[in-house]
Amino acid sequence: MVTQRIIDFLATRRPDGPCLVVDLDIVEDNFRAFRRALPDSAIFYAVKANPAPEILKLLASLGSNFDCASVAEIEMALDAGVTPSRISYGNTIKKERDVARAHELGVSLFAVDCTEEVEKIARSAPGARVFCRVLTNGEGAEWPLSRKFGCVPAMAVDVLTEAARLGLKATGVSFHVGSQQTNTEAWDSAIADAKFVFDALAEKGIVLTLVNMGGGFPTRYLKDVPAASAYGQAIFQSLTKHFGNQLPETIIEPGRGMVGDAGVIKTEVVLVSKKSKADENRWVFLDIGKFGGLAETMDEAIRYPILSHRDGEATEPCVLAGPTCDSADVMYEKTPYPLPVSLTVGDELLIDGTGAYTTTYASVAFNGFEPLRSYVI
Amino acid sequence: MVTQRIIDFLATRRPDGPCLVVDLDIVEDNFRAFRRALPDSAIFYAVKANPAPEILKLLASLGSNFDCASVAEIEMALDAGVTPSRISYGNTIKKERDVARAHELGVSLFAVDCTEEVEKIARSAPGARVFCRVLTNGEGAEWPLSRKFGCVPAMAVDVLTEAARLGLKATGVSFHVGSQQTNTEAWDSAIADAKFVFDALAEKGIVLTLVNMGGGFPTRYLKDVPAASAYGQAIFQSLTKHFGNQLPETIIEPGRGMVGDAGVIKTEVVLVSKKSKADENRWVFLDIGKFGGLAETMDEAIRYPILSHRDGEATEPCVLAGPTCDSADVMYEKTPYPLPVSLTVGDELLIDGTGAYTTTYASVAFNGFEPLRSYVI
Repeated sequence: MVTQRIIDFLATRRPDGPCLVVDLDIVEDNFRAFRRALPDSAIFYAVKANPAPEILKLLASLGSNFDCASVAEIEMALDAGVTPSRISYGNTIKKERDVARAHELGVSLFAVDCTEEVEKIARSAPGARVFCRVLTNGEGAEWPLSRKFGCVPAMAVDVLTEAARLGLKATGVSFHVGSQQTNTEAWDSAIADAKFVFDALAEKGIVLTLVNMGGGFPTRYLKDVPAASAYGQAIFQSLTKHFGNQLPETIIEPGRGMVGDAGVIKTEVVLVSKKSKADENRWVFLDIGKFGGLAETMDEAIRYPILSHRDGEATEPCVLAGPTCDSADVMYEKTPYPLPVSLTVGDELLIDGTGAYTTTYASVAFNGFEPLRSYVI
Repeated sequence: MVTQRIIDFLATRRPDGPCLVVDLDIVEDNFRAFRRALPDSAIFYAVKANPAPEILKLLASLGSNFDCASVAEIEMALDAGVTPSRISYGNTIKKERDVARAHELGVSLFAVDCTEEVEKIARSAPGARVFCRVLTNGEGAEWPLSRKFGCVPAMAVDVLTEAARLGLKATGVSFHVGSQQTNTEAWDSAIADAKFVFDALAEKGIVLTLVNMGGGFPTRYLKDVPAASAYGQAIFQSLTKHFGNQLPETIIEPGRGMVGDAGVIKTEVVLVSKKSKADENRWVFLDIGKFGGLAETMDEAIRYPILSHRDGEATEPCVLAGPTCDSADVMYEKTPYPLPVSLTVGDELLIDGTGAYTTTYASVAFNGFEPLRSYVI
């Protein structure tokens, strides 16, 4: 969302080169919207979406918990002032020495999706709580969800049984319906799977208490997406449908939905050209591309809104590419992007909805270009 | 190439975490092989392939020139001790202030592919030499070559004519046959295009002198590739066929071919698991992935040789994935990778042929993971 604060910041500071500006007021609005939508769920912010210290501090002060992918992210959350009891080590792929380090730091909630991982945690974080991630099909998600995380529900029963046998607290089930999930019904079948695991373990005398419903909450790019309240309603209905009046504790892990629309990238048009006189499309080259922070344009998955001071003028479809010498550094080509006909070298553009999954994806120095700078205001 | 020097380095230093080790002896061998294969061509090392200062210094001392993608890369080449006359600003997408900075630093050879870029150079690097890049089809290349760079030959004639009109030295034509190009004949049609541009400009009284034949020279991954000498022979034959006894000056810009096989990445198996009891493939998770330096596994384009101390044992196809919480961080899944059945958590693997396009592609901190460390020995 290009807020007045972001516009003023860019007008006053005039930073050189591409940069991301994040407006903390929007982050706060988003946090409150999630809390209103799912008042009984604990919010665990997915730090990987944007780990800027100012964002972590704000969310910590608002009462958020933190979903961390690595020891470095756990340390960032601790630095933001939260106790380890508010941190989940949510990556199912962990080195045993990292499990040990998290345990040392006081973290006691871990994700698993196989017995191999349970064994590491039993050895290096004895007595910890674990939840097992189950596979979902990811239908309706705009960012591809592979089979990388999770196991089938039947295997989750075995994994949690083994956890209990090894002295861990088998606590619950997690799932992820796929990032930028625009179908509010997507949570229903996963919640049904969670209930199946709860029931199977109850028969063995193991009582689960937690359903971690992951992230997937979308941000508004070009198309409208349902509001947090619509997700909240659909999810609450599914929980009631499957768990009746014995509702489990629940967790949500918004990342993109928390910070995506809070950030805007300022970029400059470096070149506008054609490949031949007969070329249908103009090529527009920016000073940011796939390797400078816009990695989610991979396979043209995420289509960001792009604004310029020429908006309202006639547009024509353009191929949009980044500044590196890599021929794969093209953002939109299969579906060219409509941009003002009068767009020219030196024009500034604003790429909206870029608060999540941009700064940390940037390469260290591909082609000698600096990583994306970020200002949190 | 896993040389004894690399093996000894890893055995002695035992670096923690994933890292790249580059053997400078192999880089030197590769440089000499290119010089032998194309003794009349000037070698411009593509800095973007691996800008490690030790590599740049070695190549500078051997007499290499440098193809740079940005002002930062130009500064790195200068820091390695070369004069600006040995540097080409080979990116066709340049901010005018970067052109001016390169000019200030003494660089006088620039790539263009449209009149818009020519105008910038005429204004900010008056009198410079320019060469115009023409499009090729990239057939036979393993890394996708898009239409991002270059224009059709007929337009190149206009671009170079305009350059001459604006007081620049219209110097020649460049092309790129696509990275990891395994067809030695791929250069032929591009050389024919270059000749067409030479002839059309000669009719206007503009005498071109340079053909920049770009890179594309492959490195050996899993399949054998032709030797530098085979490329040299095919290219020399094409030059003679099209230019007769009036051979132009030529440039080659090897990057991958210069350093790819000089580097090896050491990685650790973090987890080996299945998604269900019936799962056909095991999943093997490493401590490096698509966002930690192996970006070229995108769409499973580059398939690296992977070695372990269990080689020789029975293998089974595995899905290979990285350590981040991103579901797109999977290297090989459509075509699973055969790995030893006995492979287990904590095993070290060596990923060969990773000297090019790895360190600089690594993300700054995705999921909190450090960028790929590099040791040049």
